[in-house]
Amino acid sequence: MQAPFQDRLARAAASAAGAGIDALLITPGADLRYLVGYQALPLERLTCLAIPATGEPFLVVPALERAAAEASGATDHVSLATHGETEDAFQLVARRLADALGGSPRSIGVSDRMWAQQVVRFTDTIGGATLSLAGDVLRPLRLRKLPDEVDALRVAAAAIDRVHSRMGEWLRPGRTEAAVARDIGEAILVEGHTSVNFVIVGSGPNGASPHHHVSDRVIEPGDPVVIDIGGTMADGYCSDCTRTYVAGEQPPSDFADYYEVLLAAQRASCAHVRPGVTAHSVDAAARQVIADAGYGELFIHRTGHGIGLEEHEEPWIVEGSQVVLEPGMCFSIEPGVYLPGRHGARIEDIVVVTDDGVERLDTIERELVVLGA
Amino acid sequence: MQAPFQDRLARAAASAAGAGIDALLITPGADLRYLVGYQALPLERLTCLAIPATGEPFLVVPALERAAAEASGATDHVSLATHGETEDAFQLVARRLADALGGSPRSIGVSDRMWAQQVVRFTDTIGGATLSLAGDVLRPLRLRKLPDEVDALRVAAAAIDRVHSRMGEWLRPGRTEAAVARDIGEAILVEGHTSVNFVIVGSGPNGASPHHHVSDRVIEPGDPVVIDIGGTMADGYCSDCTRTYVAGEQPPSDFADYYEVLLAAQRASCAHVRPGVTAHSVDAAARQVIADAGYGELFIHRTGHGIGLEEHEEPWIVEGSQVVLEPGMCFSIEPGVYLPGRHGARIEDIVVVTDDGVERLDTIERELVVLGA
Repeated sequence: MQAPFQDRLARAAASAAGAGIDALLITPGADLRYLVGYQALPLERLTCLAIPATGEPFLVVPALERAAAEASGATDHVSLATHGETEDAFQLVARRLADALGGSPRSIGVSDRMWAQQVVRFTDTIGGATLSLAGDVLRPLRLRKLPDEVDALRVAAAAIDRVHSRMGEWLRPGRTEAAVARDIGEAILVEGHTSVNFVIVGSGPNGASPHHHVSDRVIEPGDPVVIDIGGTMADGYCSDCTRTYVAGEQPPSDFADYYEVLLAAQRASCAHVRPGVTAHSVDAAARQVIADAGYGELFIHRTGHGIGLEEHEEPWIVEGSQVVLEPGMCFSIEPGVYLPGRHGARIEDIVVVTDDGVERLDTIERELVVLGA
Repeated sequence: MQAPFQDRLARAAASAAGAGIDALLITPGADLRYLVGYQALPLERLTCLAIPATGEPFLVVPALERAAAEASGATDHVSLATHGETEDAFQLVARRLADALGGSPRSIGVSDRMWAQQVVRFTDTIGGATLSLAGDVLRPLRLRKLPDEVDALRVAAAAIDRVHSRMGEWLRPGRTEAAVARDIGEAILVEGHTSVNFVIVGSGPNGASPHHHVSDRVIEPGDPVVIDIGGTMADGYCSDCTRTYVAGEQPPSDFADYYEVLLAAQRASCAHVRPGVTAHSVDAAARQVIADAGYGELFIHRTGHGIGLEEHEEPWIVEGSQVVLEPGMCFSIEPGVYLPGRHGARIEDIVVVTDDGVERLDTIERELVVLGA
């Protein structure tokens, strides 16, 4: 993927200026990777990208991290300053900002996930500056993926789809959830991810808990099994796809009944996606189908979450959200039905809003399949 | 390990009251695990332990995390409140705090690593409250490990020592750093850890970069190899131990010369540890030996870091630190010598300050050994 970091840095600085923020201060995380391509470790020693509204951005890292910062390519786009073990890195940032701005910043925007202790150090060091969140200006940029980013998410989705397409190799009655999860985890790496973000294998009653991960439960014949998996590719973009399978033999009839409702709900929600509609209405499209069939009380979470350099990011596809969809927004559509103590089902695809509708990035089979028979 | 959470919660509340803080607000991380034993995921949905200076502490979690919170045992010590997908969790915390305190808090102490966006939501919701860091009151508690915690760190150290003791199974000329690292990673789990925190295999010139991790470099005969490894045990306590080995045949004579100096420095630093001395002086004890031998410029980092529920925590064993050592403080002693472009060496043990001196928790051989001959 081409990485247009210069453009992103310029747009971030312009957005900051437009919002009356003199400088953005970005510590390790997805914002830093988005802006300069540096996947920095969150260390107790300060790493911080500073973007003055006017003047040149710069990156401050511990001296020990100089090689890693240079290897990331970030220093092709911003100048680098390092600090030793006994230097005050916050003062270093403040001094260089004052040089760039011709005076101390009167307002700073810190990354949304900056640690509180760093927030306090910055506000103490840059006395009197107004504090705001960098997310307020970066969110509009990161929310709308450009074609390069959509391509990256499409490649990630294809990789996780290949893992799902191999599920018959691993999922069968008599194996534990944990054993199946180990095989899936290896396949997530083999199929092209550089890290495994999560592997949920929820069989039988465990499938009724949306945030169950894995257990030593032995999968029984006829068990519905929720498989929700995701990883991160080398370029930082994430995958996330859920399918619900049945192990060994036909499932209980109550399960088969609501699975068909769920599938219709997932399709209705996807079909509703287009520029101009609200995130709320996408959630409502799924919720309505499930409620109409009498299962409304069993759909106990939001319909989806944004995805990109983070597994979960904005927009949230949730009741009440008045976020209006625009081309390039990428998110999951993952309604579920959960029957406590019995079983559950969830179907999840990543989709992108196109100029006139929607494209599903995950494209594998959604009809119920029996594996390991 | 017995988990004296009630006592920790009571001490935290008393310390907050003593510092004039009306309530501590603790989001997922080591502080939360220390206080109630809950290893919560850092989700976009708020999880927060609130400890009012007077009244009962309570835990707020997303409804989907209720089962995980209960399974952690946290709810044996604090009451639980959950929030649904469309509720304002920050208002929920504020309301319950006001009930406990008989009015809105005038000062809040947030966990040191709370996300900036949560800090802003809390300060907006609890209007007018003074902001401080919970670390200021929790640090004195976490810095001094009680015997249960020292026992846990001793068990973790023994586990990582067993991995080092098996290094001859994996380390030999002709193998890549990455292949050796994979074997070490598996052994870290086999020997009792539940997660691998890092595996550094720095052979030849890569050993001269303290934060090198692994590469595809093939280890050559006579290469010094820095092996710095650590993991987390089921109870949350971490291990961290470095040894420098030589692969296949005797190392270059310049390496052998400074290795002896380094070993003497590590011993001198350890021998200096006792209640009443400063962290600075422990760093200086190592630095002096290395400088006296003419290698001062090649020791480019601090001597050590605290360890506990975090791999790196206070106290920092660094030049200029006036922290005075007390019984129960646990930290690494890990001086290094790095000859750019050639090779490097580091020797690291975790130690605990005792009533009258020091105990090394890592106890395996520190003399130079040749493996894979």
